[in-house]
Amino acid sequence: MNPSPRTLTVALGPRSYDILIGSGILSAIGPELKTRFRGQRVAVVSNETVAPLYLAQTRRSLEEAGFRVTPIILPDGESHKNWITLQRIFDALIENRFERGDALLALGGGVIGDMTGFAAACHQRGVPFVQVPTTLLAQVDASVGGKTGINHPLGKNLIGAFHQPCLVLMDVDTLATLPQREHRAGLAEVIKYGVIWDKELFGLLETRLETILAGEPSLLTELLHRCCAIKAEIVAMDERELGTRALLNFGHTFGHAIESLTGYDAWLHGEAVAAGMVVAARFATRLGLCPAEASERVCALIQRAGLPTRLPAYPVDHYLEAMIHDKKVAFGNMRFILPETIGRAVVRDNPSAADLTATLAAHMES
Amino acid sequence: MNPSPRTLTVALGPRSYDILIGSGILSAIGPELKTRFRGQRVAVVSNETVAPLYLAQTRRSLEEAGFRVTPIILPDGESHKNWITLQRIFDALIENRFERGDALLALGGGVIGDMTGFAAACHQRGVPFVQVPTTLLAQVDASVGGKTGINHPLGKNLIGAFHQPCLVLMDVDTLATLPQREHRAGLAEVIKYGVIWDKELFGLLETRLETILAGEPSLLTELLHRCCAIKAEIVAMDERELGTRALLNFGHTFGHAIESLTGYDAWLHGEAVAAGMVVAARFATRLGLCPAEASERVCALIQRAGLPTRLPAYPVDHYLEAMIHDKKVAFGNMRFILPETIGRAVVRDNPSAADLTATLAAHMES
Repeated sequence: MNPSPRTLTVALGPRSYDILIGSGILSAIGPELKTRFRGQRVAVVSNETVAPLYLAQTRRSLEEAGFRVTPIILPDGESHKNWITLQRIFDALIENRFERGDALLALGGGVIGDMTGFAAACHQRGVPFVQVPTTLLAQVDASVGGKTGINHPLGKNLIGAFHQPCLVLMDVDTLATLPQREHRAGLAEVIKYGVIWDKELFGLLETRLETILAGEPSLLTELLHRCCAIKAEIVAMDERELGTRALLNFGHTFGHAIESLTGYDAWLHGEAVAAGMVVAARFATRLGLCPAEASERVCALIQRAGLPTRLPAYPVDHYLEAMIHDKKVAFGNMRFILPETIGRAVVRDNPSAADLTATLAAHMES
Repeated sequence: MNPSPRTLTVALGPRSYDILIGSGILSAIGPELKTRFRGQRVAVVSNETVAPLYLAQTRRSLEEAGFRVTPIILPDGESHKNWITLQRIFDALIENRFERGDALLALGGGVIGDMTGFAAACHQRGVPFVQVPTTLLAQVDASVGGKTGINHPLGKNLIGAFHQPCLVLMDVDTLATLPQREHRAGLAEVIKYGVIWDKELFGLLETRLETILAGEPSLLTELLHRCCAIKAEIVAMDERELGTRALLNFGHTFGHAIESLTGYDAWLHGEAVAAGMVVAARFATRLGLCPAEASERVCALIQRAGLPTRLPAYPVDHYLEAMIHDKKVAFGNMRFILPETIGRAVVRDNPSAADLTATLAAHMES
């Protein structure tokens, strides 16, 4: 238990904000927010799984710092990341007369963070919001960078906004209650940062994987700090994903197709990204961009982390169709992030269709 | 008929855009867009009233300039400015595989412009959009400045985004098909610019009102140019309504309350703003801010324009309740824009409740 968190800043001019990372810091949310936000009311948006675990502690800290708290509890799961659930947030805000100077706080995983952020972007054309991610996936990925949104029946995150939080606070102790499957799924995004940006991080994962899976707090704090530092650096370079930020989508072109085909609830996002990274790495090797030794290391680490390395069995043309609907498609292009080695990746539009089809077919579950 | 429009620029750095104003310029939309936008597809969003009048001409111009056009026709009326109608836009965009580089074009009045702009703000976290307003109200107000959104059952425009268009094109010839009642309602916003910013404009309205009501194209072009120049100046000073831009809400605190109480369909927006301006001007006089002679001129011009000068009869506390729900409320304040003279206005928070109540009571329809 260490009440003094590690701090990072996402440098975005007037939209800059801090990320606080540590063990036992959830009870500091009230005073930390007080120094950064002049409003008086906070709507804490959470779900039926996370609220019983962490809402009371969060609420107490906020109230002791002088905030009035309104909890908004949503159903749990990616299948609820839609208009209907979003309306429940708007209804609660408006019925409780939330005003332009009041804040929303997301307490939960990526779904809660994305929906709360989107509600904050749209309520009265934009109000402040705070991210308190409680899953590894949300901590290393969704809670930093300002991407918010909901799903459409025809594709993930098709409707949304860029809306930066005013504070992100991550308590690694919340990971102790995370199911092992979700912990592993979150690791997929950690592995992603290693592949696209940081070969030392990748090496650390290879050597300390078992300790990380066992949830050692100081090692988790170190991992989160590294991942968030990379994300903060990339987002500061390219807030609206016109260039470099696209690298963060490594594994996601295939991963989103898996989620779209399986209906969003069968595979966790991180599991889909894990299989997607294996396929993308092997695809890069097939195209002659990446040495086979590097793509094998990617595949081996993902397998050791207990994550899937093959695609669910659907006809290849269903995958192609799902990838064309993906929102990273620009001017009719299909866009892939492909590693050149461990620690470096590139963006490629419209690579050879024959190689793509062959790669998909070669990685299908039998 | 003059194919060479008057041009204004809204100066917002990388989000700057042109406003083209003239008679007979709708058929130039294709080539004008071509010089400003590199995409290939345009979704033209319109309604069942406007589409039969102007869709064919718009579509032809766009197609001749090389764009692929997808029309999206919505039902007409403020009561459709909601989630359900917005979904129809998203569904059409996604089913037709609209991508990040494709544009939306709003062809219609303020409701079409606000919904199309909000859909463009949210589709794939933001795509380009074009405003082609066909009503006087939308031309002088809603189509410039980037405010987009939809209504919530508890209040107008409570859910939305700031999203600037890449081009605004106004053909005054479209006003020839506008019902007289809507023409007069649009004039309310023109009068607003005179009161808050431009005493010469106010004088022009006093001397040429009948010619304006008769729809003389060159005079309308001049009025639109003046109003849009004022709005462009104010928006460039204060894009996100942190200060000066609030002046544009003159008449709207009372006006929104009227719309909320009457259910949005009985009064046109401009009619509600007209009565709201009369009440606000008289309130300013009661508070000693504005000479009685000036508030009488405001009232007289609004009356001559055939617009309402009294509030619909509801209990005073219903008005207070509706005004508290208005989204301009900040930190518990009720905010009013009050004229000091013709051509100058100020923002006042929480003026005397007794004077507010007395002013409301004094202006109720019997």
